[in-house]
Amino acid sequence: MHDPSTLRPLYAPRNIAVIGASNNVAKFGGRPIAYMKKTGFAGDIFPVHPKESEIQGLRAYRDVREIGEAVDLAMIAVPGPLVLDTARACAEAGVGAAVVIASGFAESDSDGDGGIWQRELTSLARTSGMRVLGPNCMGTASVLNGAVTTFATVYEFFTLRPGSIATVTQSGAMGAHLLVLAAQRGLGAHSMVTTGNECDIDVAECIGYLAEDPDVSVIACYLEGCNRPDVLQASLESARRNGKPVVALKVGATDVGAQAAGTHTASLAGSDAVFDAVLKSYGVHRVSNLDEMLLVSSACAAGKYPQGRRLGIVTISGGGGVMAADAAVENGLEVPELPQPAQDKLKALMPFAAVRNPVDTTAQVTNQLELLEQNLEVMVDEGNCHAVVLFLAYVGLSPRVWKGLREILLSFRAKYPDALVVCTGLYEPEDAQLLAEHGYMVIEDLTDGVAMVAVLERFARSFEKASVDSGQPSTELEPMQSIGSSLNEFEAAKALSAAGVPVLETVVVQSADEVAEAAERLSGPLALKLLSPDIAHKSDIGGVKLNVNGSQAARMAFDDIVANAKRAQPDAQIDGVLVAPMAGEGVETILGVVMDPVFGPAVMLGLGGIFTEILEDTVVRPAPVSRDTAFEMVDALRGKALLNGARGQAPSDVDALVDAICALANFAHVNREAIAGVDINPFLVRPKGHGAVALDALIVPK
Amino acid sequence: MHDPSTLRPLYAPRNIAVIGASNNVAKFGGRPIAYMKKTGFAGDIFPVHPKESEIQGLRAYRDVREIGEAVDLAMIAVPGPLVLDTARACAEAGVGAAVVIASGFAESDSDGDGGIWQRELTSLARTSGMRVLGPNCMGTASVLNGAVTTFATVYEFFTLRPGSIATVTQSGAMGAHLLVLAAQRGLGAHSMVTTGNECDIDVAECIGYLAEDPDVSVIACYLEGCNRPDVLQASLESARRNGKPVVALKVGATDVGAQAAGTHTASLAGSDAVFDAVLKSYGVHRVSNLDEMLLVSSACAAGKYPQGRRLGIVTISGGGGVMAADAAVENGLEVPELPQPAQDKLKALMPFAAVRNPVDTTAQVTNQLELLEQNLEVMVDEGNCHAVVLFLAYVGLSPRVWKGLREILLSFRAKYPDALVVCTGLYEPEDAQLLAEHGYMVIEDLTDGVAMVAVLERFARSFEKASVDSGQPSTELEPMQSIGSSLNEFEAAKALSAAGVPVLETVVVQSADEVAEAAERLSGPLALKLLSPDIAHKSDIGGVKLNVNGSQAARMAFDDIVANAKRAQPDAQIDGVLVAPMAGEGVETILGVVMDPVFGPAVMLGLGGIFTEILEDTVVRPAPVSRDTAFEMVDALRGKALLNGARGQAPSDVDALVDAICALANFAHVNREAIAGVDINPFLVRPKGHGAVALDALIVPK
Repeated sequence: MHDPSTLRPLYAPRNIAVIGASNNVAKFGGRPIAYMKKTGFAGDIFPVHPKESEIQGLRAYRDVREIGEAVDLAMIAVPGPLVLDTARACAEAGVGAAVVIASGFAESDSDGDGGIWQRELTSLARTSGMRVLGPNCMGTASVLNGAVTTFATVYEFFTLRPGSIATVTQSGAMGAHLLVLAAQRGLGAHSMVTTGNECDIDVAECIGYLAEDPDVSVIACYLEGCNRPDVLQASLESARRNGKPVVALKVGATDVGAQAAGTHTASLAGSDAVFDAVLKSYGVHRVSNLDEMLLVSSACAAGKYPQGRRLGIVTISGGGGVMAADAAVENGLEVPELPQPAQDKLKALMPFAAVRNPVDTTAQVTNQLELLEQNLEVMVDEGNCHAVVLFLAYVGLSPRVWKGLREILLSFRAKYPDALVVCTGLYEPEDAQLLAEHGYMVIEDLTDGVAMVAVLERFARSFEKASVDSGQPSTELEPMQSIGSSLNEFEAAKALSAAGVPVLETVVVQSADEVAEAAERLSGPLALKLLSPDIAHKSDIGGVKLNVNGSQAARMAFDDIVANAKRAQPDAQIDGVLVAPMAGEGVETILGVVMDPVFGPAVMLGLGGIFTEILEDTVVRPAPVSRDTAFEMVDALRGKALLNGARGQAPSDVDALVDAICALANFAHVNREAIAGVDINPFLVRPKGHGAVALDALIVPK
Repeated sequence: MHDPSTLRPLYAPRNIAVIGASNNVAKFGGRPIAYMKKTGFAGDIFPVHPKESEIQGLRAYRDVREIGEAVDLAMIAVPGPLVLDTARACAEAGVGAAVVIASGFAESDSDGDGGIWQRELTSLARTSGMRVLGPNCMGTASVLNGAVTTFATVYEFFTLRPGSIATVTQSGAMGAHLLVLAAQRGLGAHSMVTTGNECDIDVAECIGYLAEDPDVSVIACYLEGCNRPDVLQASLESARRNGKPVVALKVGATDVGAQAAGTHTASLAGSDAVFDAVLKSYGVHRVSNLDEMLLVSSACAAGKYPQGRRLGIVTISGGGGVMAADAAVENGLEVPELPQPAQDKLKALMPFAAVRNPVDTTAQVTNQLELLEQNLEVMVDEGNCHAVVLFLAYVGLSPRVWKGLREILLSFRAKYPDALVVCTGLYEPEDAQLLAEHGYMVIEDLTDGVAMVAVLERFARSFEKASVDSGQPSTELEPMQSIGSSLNEFEAAKALSAAGVPVLETVVVQSADEVAEAAERLSGPLALKLLSPDIAHKSDIGGVKLNVNGSQAARMAFDDIVANAKRAQPDAQIDGVLVAPMAGEGVETILGVVMDPVFGPAVMLGLGGIFTEILEDTVVRPAPVSRDTAFEMVDALRGKALLNGARGQAPSDVDALVDAICALANFAHVNREAIAGVDINPFLVRPKGHGAVALDALIVPK
C-alpha cells in the first residue's frame, strides 16, 4: 500500500501540466485551462501542445519533458492510443501524478489494445512511482486551491464554494453531479476526484489520503466495487481514527447474483451483505442516493457531534412537534420530558407554550423573538439534551422576522458556541449560509433534521472506538493439511473441533462390545443411528434409537438396529452404527462461512429453522471477528429474543455461541486459501452454562 | 353526513366578507384583503367594521347583515369572546361558510368559556346550516380563484402558482408551510384549507369535497386524528372511485400509549395500526414528512399512472443505471431486459451504448441529442415498459444541451402524449416547469424518480378497485344477549362458534358414563383434562390424558384423572373433566379483536409463538372485512411462507383461516357495543382441506 502522501500532487498540486491543451475552450484539453482562469489557481499552468507556443495566453511547451521544472500534476488529454507514450514521458519528466481521461481501455476493450494499455499504465505507475488516475475518468477538481483537471462543465454554470466536503467517486458523471448538487445547495466542497478504471489510484486509497487532510470534514464516496479490500479497510480505519465521517453510496445492493461457493450459507448471505458489513464495522454511513449523501455530508460539515441521544424539540407548531417526536423515535433518539425546573422557567417565559418537550412556542414567539433565545438557553443549560432541533416553518423567510431572528441566533451562538442546534424550516439561501457559518446545522426538512442528529450520534459513537475491532486471528491454528476434493462429515467435524468450534462427539461402532465401550466413555444418554449408504429413511425402519442409557441398553439398541436393517433390506451395506451423546435442549442456530469475492472469508450467523428459511434473519461479518463483533452479530438478529430467554425459556449460552463464532471465523481466516464455504446447521445453543454444539457440519473445499 | 357541495362556498366563494377588517395590513383582518388585491380575486370583498366606512379602498359595512346580498364566505377576524355573536350574525345573514381563526377555544380552554363557545359554534352550524371552519385555524386560500381568508404571510413572499394540488390540514402552520414549499418547488396549488379545532368542517369532509372537484388532481392531507371515521372512510372511498390520489401525513405514529381493552391483542396491535390499516385499505399513500408529501403530490399532478411495473431506464452514466436499478428492485418494480429487436435497434443507433436496460447512452448522447429521441421512441414502442426514467445528470443545465434537449423532448411528447417519462437530474426551474407542462414527470433525484413510478403504479392498482372492499356485515348474526362482566371459556367458545368461527368442541363430563358417551359422539382421539380451580399444573399430577381412543379407554382415563387429582390434593374442588378432540397438526396463528378509539372494532391476525411474540408479525384491519381483505392480511404476514407449506410441510388451509377472519370481524362488528376485545390464541390452521380451529378463546366485555 502506498503512503497516502503520494496523493498530495493529485489533491494539492503546486502546478499543473495540461497535455493536449487547446485554445478551443469547448475541447477537453481546453476546458481545464479556461476553468482554472475562473478559479484563480495560483500555481503555474503548463499547456503542452506539439505545435503551439502559446495557448489561452499561456506559454505552451512541445513536450512535458521540456517544462524544465518539477510538475506535480499532469492532465493527459490525448486520445487513447497516445496515452501510454504520453504517460511514459510524464514519468520521465518526474510528474507526481497523471490524470488519464481517455476511454477505450479495460472498461470496453479488456481483451484488446485497451486492456493492454491499461495494464501497461498500472505497470508504469508501479515502476516509476508516478501515480496515475483513470483511465476513463473525469479528472479532478481541488476546490480549495482551484486546481482543475476535469472537463466536467460544472465550472460553466457555477462558482463552487470552497469547503470541507471531499467527494471521491468511481463514476465520473456521479462525481461531477455531486459537485453541482453541492453547489446548488450552497455546500462547500473540498475536492472532487473521479477514479474511473482505477489502474492505480482507487477510491479506497483516496479515502486514506482524505482521512489525514486537516481541511476535510467529511468524505463522500461513490463505489461500484473494490479491488483492494485491504486498502479500503485501512483507509476507513484511518478515517475513523481521525474522526472523519465517511458517507458511502455503494451501488449494486440488490444484485444477488450467483456466488462461487455452492453452500447454503452463500445463497443466504447475498453478494452485498459482506460489503455492507465491512462498511458498517467501520462506522461508514451508507446512503442510497445522492440527495441523502449531500444531506448527511452537510450535517457532518457542521462538525458538531452529539454525545448522546436526548433530543430537545422547539417548534412554532404543535403538529411539527409531534412529527419531530415521531421522527426521533423512529431514528432511535429520545425525546425526554424536560426537568421540572426547566419547564417552570419556560412556562414563566411563555405562558401560552407547551413546555414538556417538544416545546411548542406557538407562532406568538415570532412577535417576541427574545423569548426564543431564552428558550434555547434554558433547553441547553437545563434541558439535559444533547441536541436541539428548532422548527420555525417558513417564518424565517419573512424579512421582519429574520431581522430579529438573525440577531438572537447569533447572540445565542456567541454564548453557546458548542451547542448542537439544528435550524429546520425555510431560510433564504444567504441566511442559511450565515447560520451554517456560525455553526448551526441548517436542514430544510424537519424530520431530516431530526434524522441527521441520529446519524451524527452514530458517528460520534463510532469515533470513540479507538481502532476497528476486527478480531485477531489466532496464530496457534495451523491451516488444514491437504484438503481434498471433499471432506466427509467426520473430517469436517474434526477440523472444526480442532479449531475450537464445539462439535458433538460421535464414534462409529461395529459391534455390541464397541458400543458398550463408547457408552461408558460418553456421558449421558446416547443416540444411535445406522450407518448405511443404502437405507435412506433410517428412523422408518428402526435404524435410530434415542435416549439410550447405559452400556447394557446400548448393546441391545445396537443389536436391534442391525437386526432391523437386515430385516428391512437384507442386501444393504452396513458401515456400522453412529453413536453420539443426545444433543439436549437448546436454540437452533446456523453458523457458516461464505467467501466474499472482495473481502474473502466471512462468517455468517442465523437463527435456525423458520427464522433463517422464511425470514432470512442472518448476519454476516468479514473474518476474523472479535468477541465484541460476535456479540454485535447476535444482537443484530431480529429474533435475538429467542436466545435471551423469550417465551419462558432459560436464556441461552450466548457466550458459547460467541466463542464458536470467533473460532469459526478464525478457522475461515486461516484456511481462506483452501475452503470455499462452511455450513454448520444446526448449531445448538444450550441453556446458559451448558455450552453449545454443532450437530452437523459441512466444509466445501475450493 | 353533509352533502360535500355545502363546502362549495368555502372552496369556491363568489364573494367574501372580512369581519374585523383592518386598514393595517399587518393585522389578521387586514392581511386577507391586501392579499386578495395581489391575487386578483374577482368576486366582491365586503370589509365589515363597526366604525369605518371604507377599508383598504373598499366600501366597508357596519354589520354582515347590512351587506344586502348573499355572502358565500365570511372570515371572522375578531377576538375569541366576540366570535360567537359574530358567527350568529353571519348565520342570520345567510352566510354559506364562516372561517373562525381566533384561538382560546377547546384547544386550550375546553372546560371554560372556550369550550362552551366551541360547542355553541358546533350547534350553530348544525341548526343554521352555515358551515364553520375552525376555530383556531389559519383559514383558507383558494389559489385557483384567488380567494384568501388566511393570515399566513405566504402571500408576502411568493406568488403562488395555480394548479391541481389541494392541501387540507388540521395544523395551520403545516398548511401554510406546505403552500410555501409547493411554491418554492414551482408546484401548482389548488387550495389550502386548515381545519384547526374542527368544530364543524373537518379534514375528512374536505377530502370528500375535493374528491369531486374536477380541478383537483391530488389531495394532500395532514391529520393528527379523526373524530368522524365514517366520513373519512366515505371520503376516501369517493376519492378512490374518482381516481384522485390521496397523500396523507398522519402524525403520532410512534405513540403506542395504552389502549382501553385489556387484551393481549390490543397491546400487540398498537394505537396507530388501525388508522394505518384504514389508510392502506383505501389506497392512501402515507408519508412521514412534508418533503415526501410534495414529492408524491408533484408526481401525481403529472396525471400519468403506469399500468404495470416494468421500468425502462435511460441514463448517461452507468453508475446512474445501477443506482436506478437498485431503487427499482427496492420499490417493487421490474427492470426487464429489453426485447432483442429493441436492443438491436438501440445498438445500431448507439454502438457505444449499453442497451439491455438500463440503457447507458454515455455522455456521448449529449453531442447527438437526436439519438436520445430515437432511443425514447424505441423504449416506448418496443421496450415493453410501463414507464421510462431518464437521467441526464446535470447536463440539462448546460444552455447548449438544453436548447437541443428541449426540442427533442417536446417533439417526442407530441408523438407520444401518453407515455410516462420521468425526467430526473437537474434543469433550470423554468425548464423543469416547461417539461412538466408538457406532461413529463420532473423529479430531481434519480432514485426518487424511480420510487415515484412505483407509487403511481400502486395508485393505479388502487383506482381499479371499483369500490372499497370493506366487507359486508352479515345481517344474520344477532348481537350477543346480555354480556355480563365476563364470559367464561365455554360462553366465549359458544358465541364465537355461533358467529362462524370454528372452535374446538369441548364438553365437561362428570362421570365415566358421560365420558364414554362423549367419546362415542366426538370423532377421533380425545384429550381429557381435569377441571379444578385448585390445581394449577394439571399435567404434573396426571390430570391430563392425550390421544385417548374409544369409549373404554376414555372411561379409564377419566377414572385415572379423578384418582390422580384426589391423591395429589385430597381437598381440591373438582368441577369435572374437560373432553375435546385432539387438535391435530397445523400452524398456530393468533386471531383477535381490538377496539380502536377512532375506527371501532378491528380484527388482528398474527402467526403464533415466536412470530407474534418476538417479531410482532401481526396485521390488523377494521371490521368487517371481505374475503379479499382477509387474504391480503394473510399475505401481509412476514412469516406467511409458514402457511404456504414452507420447510417441506403441507400447505395450510388458508381458506379456512380467511373464513374465520371474516367471521370474527363480523362478530366484532355486530357486537361492537358490547365487547372490548377478543383473543383467540392459538387458532390452529390445519393442512389444506382439513379446516382450522380455535383452541382457546377469550372475550373481554366492555
